[in-house]
Amino acid sequence: MLASSGYGATSAREPLSKLDFTRRDPGPDDVQIDILYCGVCHSDLHTARNEWGNTVYPVVPGHEIIGRVVATGDKVSRFKQGDLVGVGCMVDSCMHCHACAEGLEQYCENGFVGTYNGEEMHSGGMTYGGYSSNIVVRDCFVLRIPKNLDPAAAAPLLCAGITTWSPLKQWQVGQGHKVGIVGLGGLGHMGIKLAHALGAHVVLFTTSPGKREDALRLGANDVVVSKNAEEMKAHRNSFDFILNTVAAPHALDPFLELLKRDSTMTLVGAPATPHPSTQVFNLIMKRRRLAGSLIGGIAETQEMLDFCGDHGIVSDIEMIRIQDINEAYERMLRSDVKYRFVIDMATLKQ
Amino acid sequence: MLASSGYGATSAREPLSKLDFTRRDPGPDDVQIDILYCGVCHSDLHTARNEWGNTVYPVVPGHEIIGRVVATGDKVSRFKQGDLVGVGCMVDSCMHCHACAEGLEQYCENGFVGTYNGEEMHSGGMTYGGYSSNIVVRDCFVLRIPKNLDPAAAAPLLCAGITTWSPLKQWQVGQGHKVGIVGLGGLGHMGIKLAHALGAHVVLFTTSPGKREDALRLGANDVVVSKNAEEMKAHRNSFDFILNTVAAPHALDPFLELLKRDSTMTLVGAPATPHPSTQVFNLIMKRRRLAGSLIGGIAETQEMLDFCGDHGIVSDIEMIRIQDINEAYERMLRSDVKYRFVIDMATLKQ
Repeated sequence: MLASSGYGATSAREPLSKLDFTRRDPGPDDVQIDILYCGVCHSDLHTARNEWGNTVYPVVPGHEIIGRVVATGDKVSRFKQGDLVGVGCMVDSCMHCHACAEGLEQYCENGFVGTYNGEEMHSGGMTYGGYSSNIVVRDCFVLRIPKNLDPAAAAPLLCAGITTWSPLKQWQVGQGHKVGIVGLGGLGHMGIKLAHALGAHVVLFTTSPGKREDALRLGANDVVVSKNAEEMKAHRNSFDFILNTVAAPHALDPFLELLKRDSTMTLVGAPATPHPSTQVFNLIMKRRRLAGSLIGGIAETQEMLDFCGDHGIVSDIEMIRIQDINEAYERMLRSDVKYRFVIDMATLKQ
Repeated sequence: MLASSGYGATSAREPLSKLDFTRRDPGPDDVQIDILYCGVCHSDLHTARNEWGNTVYPVVPGHEIIGRVVATGDKVSRFKQGDLVGVGCMVDSCMHCHACAEGLEQYCENGFVGTYNGEEMHSGGMTYGGYSSNIVVRDCFVLRIPKNLDPAAAAPLLCAGITTWSPLKQWQVGQGHKVGIVGLGGLGHMGIKLAHALGAHVVLFTTSPGKREDALRLGANDVVVSKNAEEMKAHRNSFDFILNTVAAPHALDPFLELLKRDSTMTLVGAPATPHPSTQVFNLIMKRRRLAGSLIGGIAETQEMLDFCGDHGIVSDIEMIRIQDINEAYERMLRSDVKYRFVIDMATLKQ
């Protein structure tokens, strides 16, 4: 077994603390990675605190992983020692169902293996995430990181980036489209950057008028305060697509009304309690659609990373020490982060 | 002005009674039609009783109209005296917006003119529907009725038929698809017939076990009692499309869970109060979609009528006298109709 150390939770009530644990020895298809940086996603906090009720302790969160390859299995040809690589929300899947065959491992009909708190296919034990010194991952779930990107700031692309990229691509957002991004957090700020780079006219919807300047700096063409009914009304029936990144329960109708005929609002945030009911009328009268989307497949994650390389896109981050992770969680709960915390994993040795 | 007589409501509280009124004289683009049959749609009742709050009295309902052409304007070349024709929910639209240009007059950006309780574009007065002796309609809103169909039983195709046809076609239902139809009323029974004729494997969802035999007779391959959680569970993740025709508020999640990845449930019934909230999780985890659809365009209505001609499809109807319309409304409220009332307009002269 491979020795590893990191930060994790041993119960829902304890703060994260240093843990030593082991990972499987790399097999012939595996890539062994020393972790340099790991982004901090809201899912990490939900899982550490068992807010989804499925956490197996101890848990080591982290699924926005950037690192260097230190060893590869005999059958691995795509990676070599020294490569800068990334690992996102998945480390394995069945690879033979319809979804996997289409490159949509996130919808694996047999269930993908999460990067943490997932059931390991090899050992039967649990997977441990990226708040740690190293990780062993099946080669086809390892991503190449473009050399021109700041590796730390690229980490959030592995979850926040692909989660917003996938629906933008699925609904064919591009040049000349008017696209709404609801919410300016870790996901929303990536949504603005990616939709802007895809050529869309981007409108940020926020409840905080104070976010206007920042949204424009990130690439939004316009900012609408969604609590202002008059501002909202001016945009009725005008959007080709809306990406809604807000996980807190909120009324969806005011956004559905802004969609053109035959257009879609995709939800990527899953609220703990449902959003208020929507008016069916808003779907019927313009043949609109309400949809969902879950992260993205491995092939499209690589496509997104390459696109980010070509366009020089990374996340806006605040680097933290691993020792400050619990404080970072509290700040994340207060939305006091612009726009993603990334852990410098070198601090694990301090 | 053209003299017309029919049955209508003079207030929300009065039953329908005999009315004399006038229509515009036929202009150069108009077709004058003597009405033979008119289907009875739930919208007729909603409007007669002002349940949508927008009724202008007196109102003459009816938008499932079958009749014979008795006169045509100078510019009308597609129809001639004696032709068997139909008129559905719309009698006019702006004809120049994006929606109209695409043949989707039901989404006319300037608002289509409803067959009744609509604002007439010519006179500025209100439109009066098909519970009447005759009607004058702009030629491009008049449909040809295939000669091999029973004209009375073809009447409900003009609303119930196109309302179910349009989403089935939009979501490309065809051979080998597994399609759910929720609810067995006027819309649902047409949904079964049309989806079956399109080659789909059709499953009817009903809360009434007693509807099984009838659903199978209409073309369903299977019937699921939607209150039975075990029966529902057996169909999880298996549907290519679900057409939900139920207007009464009901939980949508049990149906969303039955959709395959990337599949859609379209709602065609608009409840007076919203359906209960849905779980966003059910949209996210399989990238499912919840959509709406409103009747259908004129071109696709003709396409549907021709398809029904080719496949010998009509509605299952119960013919009534116009004098029995108020009783028919009461029976419709009790779902005591298999599956559409059609008024024999000859009875108007009795």
